[in-house]
Amino acid sequence: MPTVIPEDSVGLVSPQVAQFAEPLALACGRSLSHYELVYETYGELNAERSNAVLICHALSGHHHAAGYHSMDERKPGWWDSCIGPGKPIDTRKFFVVSLNNLGGCNGSTGPASRNPQTGRVYGSDFPVVTVEDWVNSQALLADRLGISQWAAVIGGSLGGMQALQWTISYPERVRHCLCIASAPKLSAQNIAFNEVARQAILTDPDYRGGDFQEQGVIPKRGLMLARMVGHITYLSDDAMGEKFGRERKSETPNFDLHNVEFQVESYLRYQGEEFSGRFDANTYLLMTKALDYFDPAASQGGDLAKTLSVAKADFCVMSFTTDWRFSPARSREIVDALMAAKKNVSYLEIEAAQGHDAFLIPIPRYLQGFSAYMNRIKV
Amino acid sequence: MPTVIPEDSVGLVSPQVAQFAEPLALACGRSLSHYELVYETYGELNAERSNAVLICHALSGHHHAAGYHSMDERKPGWWDSCIGPGKPIDTRKFFVVSLNNLGGCNGSTGPASRNPQTGRVYGSDFPVVTVEDWVNSQALLADRLGISQWAAVIGGSLGGMQALQWTISYPERVRHCLCIASAPKLSAQNIAFNEVARQAILTDPDYRGGDFQEQGVIPKRGLMLARMVGHITYLSDDAMGEKFGRERKSETPNFDLHNVEFQVESYLRYQGEEFSGRFDANTYLLMTKALDYFDPAASQGGDLAKTLSVAKADFCVMSFTTDWRFSPARSREIVDALMAAKKNVSYLEIEAAQGHDAFLIPIPRYLQGFSAYMNRIKV
Repeated sequence: MPTVIPEDSVGLVSPQVAQFAEPLALACGRSLSHYELVYETYGELNAERSNAVLICHALSGHHHAAGYHSMDERKPGWWDSCIGPGKPIDTRKFFVVSLNNLGGCNGSTGPASRNPQTGRVYGSDFPVVTVEDWVNSQALLADRLGISQWAAVIGGSLGGMQALQWTISYPERVRHCLCIASAPKLSAQNIAFNEVARQAILTDPDYRGGDFQEQGVIPKRGLMLARMVGHITYLSDDAMGEKFGRERKSETPNFDLHNVEFQVESYLRYQGEEFSGRFDANTYLLMTKALDYFDPAASQGGDLAKTLSVAKADFCVMSFTTDWRFSPARSREIVDALMAAKKNVSYLEIEAAQGHDAFLIPIPRYLQGFSAYMNRIKV
Repeated sequence: MPTVIPEDSVGLVSPQVAQFAEPLALACGRSLSHYELVYETYGELNAERSNAVLICHALSGHHHAAGYHSMDERKPGWWDSCIGPGKPIDTRKFFVVSLNNLGGCNGSTGPASRNPQTGRVYGSDFPVVTVEDWVNSQALLADRLGISQWAAVIGGSLGGMQALQWTISYPERVRHCLCIASAPKLSAQNIAFNEVARQAILTDPDYRGGDFQEQGVIPKRGLMLARMVGHITYLSDDAMGEKFGRERKSETPNFDLHNVEFQVESYLRYQGEEFSGRFDANTYLLMTKALDYFDPAASQGGDLAKTLSVAKADFCVMSFTTDWRFSPARSREIVDALMAAKKNVSYLEIEAAQGHDAFLIPIPRYLQGFSAYMNRIKV
């Protein structure tokens, strides 16, 4: 908890809620008749409304990207290292919008919300949402905020996919796209890891076919396992090695099948348990499905360059050397397609030991490259 | 099932059982008073007893490494591609011994066996066994078979760790050590994946603290998840991509949270379900713990060269380029230590797309290198 708000922080912030009563048609064929999006803003929208930046979150992210909700908050928003006065997304220059996506569990309408048509919690009845659906809902939020064009749409991982999709779905409405630690579509291995996480949740007896909330239980075991396996893929082998090595919990081995022996086990269990107490199992399923389904080039026979040819934005693609979830090679696929489509693209591959998580970490070269790109955006 | 036994097969084979009534002291401080080891042999022991080869199995392996148990058997033993007349481990030259390790679930004494002292199934009471314990039990089996020295001890993955341990525990009893797709100890990431598998089993309500067998249930969900996550680490990203890509089960997306969409999901679920019907959950836990604990250099302050300096064997180390469970870098740690210890060591890094599983697959360059090494062993 901050005793004093740091000078480079956006300070105390409050979430806001936008309500929508016009039905939103979804890729799955269903629609949401009413829904809410919770969001935060940092900085000031200028008179020309030309300095707005959209932050898109990743799998377990949400709207609270920077600053503090109160002086009691232990940690600032999840991307505080990159958003604030003097930071890469400089709030003295930009008006930043950060929302919780549809299907989320942090305030926007999702599986834990009540369906206004039935009065019951959605649970398993919440429709599958895709990256395209999110971008459509984000465009409606932009309309509501009077933002006809984003100076930049920015995201890491699943957030980078949304940033890419913006340039395809609404080419006139994005001047710059920053796609960080992302991929143009999942590999079979990526899908396989997601499927393990889903099976962990679906086979938890407390999942109750998705209607656990109505039945007063939580599939904690499934969520814990899902988070544990996810967490391994967010860190590099090296990062785990440096952080934990083969350090034991105690000096001598316990030779106990049921208890942790090594620090890394203890860390993973803690991460899993903490997560299982704060995240909705149906949202986790939805987020992994959105990742699996993302494949913008599919409608163009797999031709990503052709898919991106409609874009009007300039692009900045960044990747991290030890990221094995979405390796630099996956970012280069995007860069190659953008070059083939004759788009302006900057590419920065950052030496970093932290794996996929690096995009959340204030690595000097990353912050410098990120700032350099953001500084040259005209508003 | 073979209608005719192939000419390069060891043919029809039958497991044998060796019973031991002398207590075996284990690394964990406990001991087993009585135990059985099930094993198979292929080829003939020569008059000088100088042509015996020991096969050590990996996590889910067993004694049935080659040939067929009957004409009805669908597939031959798990390493049939490498054992048989004219194959790398040529049964015209070598007498091959392959056992199921202690703690296993294929016939040797393990958690599903009855404890002769209590009359009850061991379940969670079966002691934790280590690679060193296995090697000690294998040495007693060698005594029983009248084999004072192995021409070679051979294993892949966890089997390679046993082969290495033999050269340290019983240097006079091993002339050649073949250590394939292995590592001198697990990395934090390796342990982390094992921990996910263990947690999947331990948190399955049907695990019942390990005494599921006495209670007439099986922790199938946990075993399924453990196998799914393991399976991902056995295959390379490329191999999964080539095998499944993003192929769907049906032409149009189903947008169903609870059902499989992609072929790779379907494959993983099948693998997991099949495994959960034939493998013991406590054995799975034991095997992963044996992997975690293996660290022969620990007693020498982490100095692997010093640890291996006692060895009298010649070594052949093999690795596969896309193996990310035990990457070539891990094999090179072993090679470097052996060179530093001035041992004779051959190293072959094989280009192979199949990941860790490559050591089970008849890849021409692998079979050639393997054969070349085995052919020069004097018996």
